Amino acid sequence: MSKSVAKYAIGIDVGGTTTKFGIVSREGKILEQDRIPTNAHEVVEDFIDDLYDKLMPMIKRIGGIENIIGIGMGAPNANYYSGNIEYPPNLKWKGIIPIAELMHKKFGLTTKLTNDANAAAVGEMTYGVTKGIKHFITITLGTGVGSGIVVDGKILLGHDGFAGELGHTIIRPGGRLHKSTKMRGSLEAYASATGVRETAIELLTLHPDKESLLRDYALNNITSETVYECAMQGDTIANQIFDFTGQILGESLANFIMFSSPEVIVLFGGLTKAGNLLLNPTRKAMEANLLPIFQNKVKLLFSELKEADAAILGASALIWDVSEYD
Amino acid sequence: MSKSVAKYAIGIDVGGTTTKFGIVSREGKILEQDRIPTNAHEVVEDFIDDLYDKLMPMIKRIGGIENIIGIGMGAPNANYYSGNIEYPPNLKWKGIIPIAELMHKKFGLTTKLTNDANAAAVGEMTYGVTKGIKHFITITLGTGVGSGIVVDGKILLGHDGFAGELGHTIIRPGGRLHKSTKMRGSLEAYASATGVRETAIELLTLHPDKESLLRDYALNNITSETVYECAMQGDTIANQIFDFTGQILGESLANFIMFSSPEVIVLFGGLTKAGNLLLNPTRKAMEANLLPIFQNKVKLLFSELKEADAAILGASALIWDVSEYD
Repeated sequence: MSKSVAKYAIGIDVGGTTTKFGIVSREGKILEQDRIPTNAHEVVEDFIDDLYDKLMPMIKRIGGIENIIGIGMGAPNANYYSGNIEYPPNLKWKGIIPIAELMHKKFGLTTKLTNDANAAAVGEMTYGVTKGIKHFITITLGTGVGSGIVVDGKILLGHDGFAGELGHTIIRPGGRLHKSTKMRGSLEAYASATGVRETAIELLTLHPDKESLLRDYALNNITSETVYECAMQGDTIANQIFDFTGQILGESLANFIMFSSPEVIVLFGGLTKAGNLLLNPTRKAMEANLLPIFQNKVKLLFSELKEADAAILGASALIWDVSEYD
Repeated sequence: MSKSVAKYAIGIDVGGTTTKFGIVSREGKILEQDRIPTNAHEVVEDFIDDLYDKLMPMIKRIGGIENIIGIGMGAPNANYYSGNIEYPPNLKWKGIIPIAELMHKKFGLTTKLTNDANAAAVGEMTYGVTKGIKHFITITLGTGVGSGIVVDGKILLGHDGFAGELGHTIIRPGGRLHKSTKMRGSLEAYASATGVRETAIELLTLHPDKESLLRDYALNNITSETVYECAMQGDTIANQIFDFTGQILGESLANFIMFSSPEVIVLFGGLTKAGNLLLNPTRKAMEANLLPIFQNKVKLLFSELKEADAAILGASALIWDVSEYD
């Protein structure tokens, strides 16, 4: 089990529904991967047993456990400092779950834990578009809005390990209600797939006389993908939806830039499929809300990691540069 | 000039009007101090000559230059990485001014430069209420709003040295015009002495029939101090002004907390004289806008550094822990 021969890392992404895991090379190649449902186990020990049963044959195929340097895990409400998942609202296990310690005991491997958004940032730094970049922010635009902030080459964790909840910062005080946090006007209420859907419903309701391809869908069936497809066909309202989303996202990014002055902001997640429809208004609003000393400096990039692989890659990346990360 | 005997640091605060400087002990005692006007010199070299003429007798009195470890400077538009003041809007010297290098040549002493808000944070960490605290934010509420962000015991500088411009983050999109930046709705437009004055004028104009002690003053003579004095006498509008200011400040602080998860936020500067009139509504709005995992965790404190000394102390602190700071 000498460290010098370890060639692979295990990456595990604990999602609300599915847990994906794989064995990853230093270069970011996933050699083996599989998945299990996250909430099929009443107690976390059974979940870990299930992971173990699935992972051990994979580990054997890549030459045995002495080739594994350790385990990186991304999970909701994860605390890097303690290695615990703390009061996860969407998981079956309640309270404080010492998952890194339990994994370490089961596998005999160093296990590092962080939230999935931070894991995405470490993945980007290890295998993606921010290799060698010391100051950047990753924004994940999915069902919600996640963020990982890197300062001086390290994930910004804050004094308690919970730093980087940028999706919950308020950008429209008194604005749209966020259904699960009950907060008003947070970035996530607008710049997520859910937010795009809500903007669509609002605009269609507000302008009942305006024609739109979106009116061919029942309101309940409108998704961010629907909006994208209609926008690509030149639909005015669908384009307005992305303009509005980009406006709010760009204003938020400007605020983030004036906080940590990153060199790059990486956008990642489902909404980025909208490409320039989202990127152009975002960049415009971002630049318009920056002090001159920050203008035309920050690169706004899309992640180049495949979304299907990113969660496993990000988690695995935690373990490669523990020294960097600590 | 062996480092082991150096007992004192020089602190220099280059303000828009006055430059204050002094010799400071490791414990934060100012042994000697003086001031010169900042803008009396056409070229920066003359300014430095003037500083030298004033400082050398002071240095002699504390036992000679071998007792000085180095020079710390706070200045507007200062870049820690380069040691330059870059395009300062309020100074006579234009363009890029390599002031740290020029000081080093003149005095033969290591010279470190940062902006005044960052210097205030380093001063707080070295001599003030955040000694030993690794994650905190200092917010200076003066004519404007400055900020210094400390992450893992180091000032957050960002990739270009300009991080931490929290006064210019937008908290009311489309809101009040900031006269010098031309941006709308920035924190500084509200939570500064200037902002408090503007809020007073707005409220008095909006409610012409409401009685207020503030109506005994010509609008042009209303200052944040006037508002404070009236509020202390129970004036309703004056109290509303602080409630509103605290609301906006608190919302902003909540956003900052969800970015870097500090253990402490230190408030400093003229507006803090308002004490609980400002602190109570600020804390209330801050807590109300935080995700539960951040609630009731962050200490909101006033600086205990004397305002008259803080600028020199903060600048001098830059030089004590260069190793920490780099």
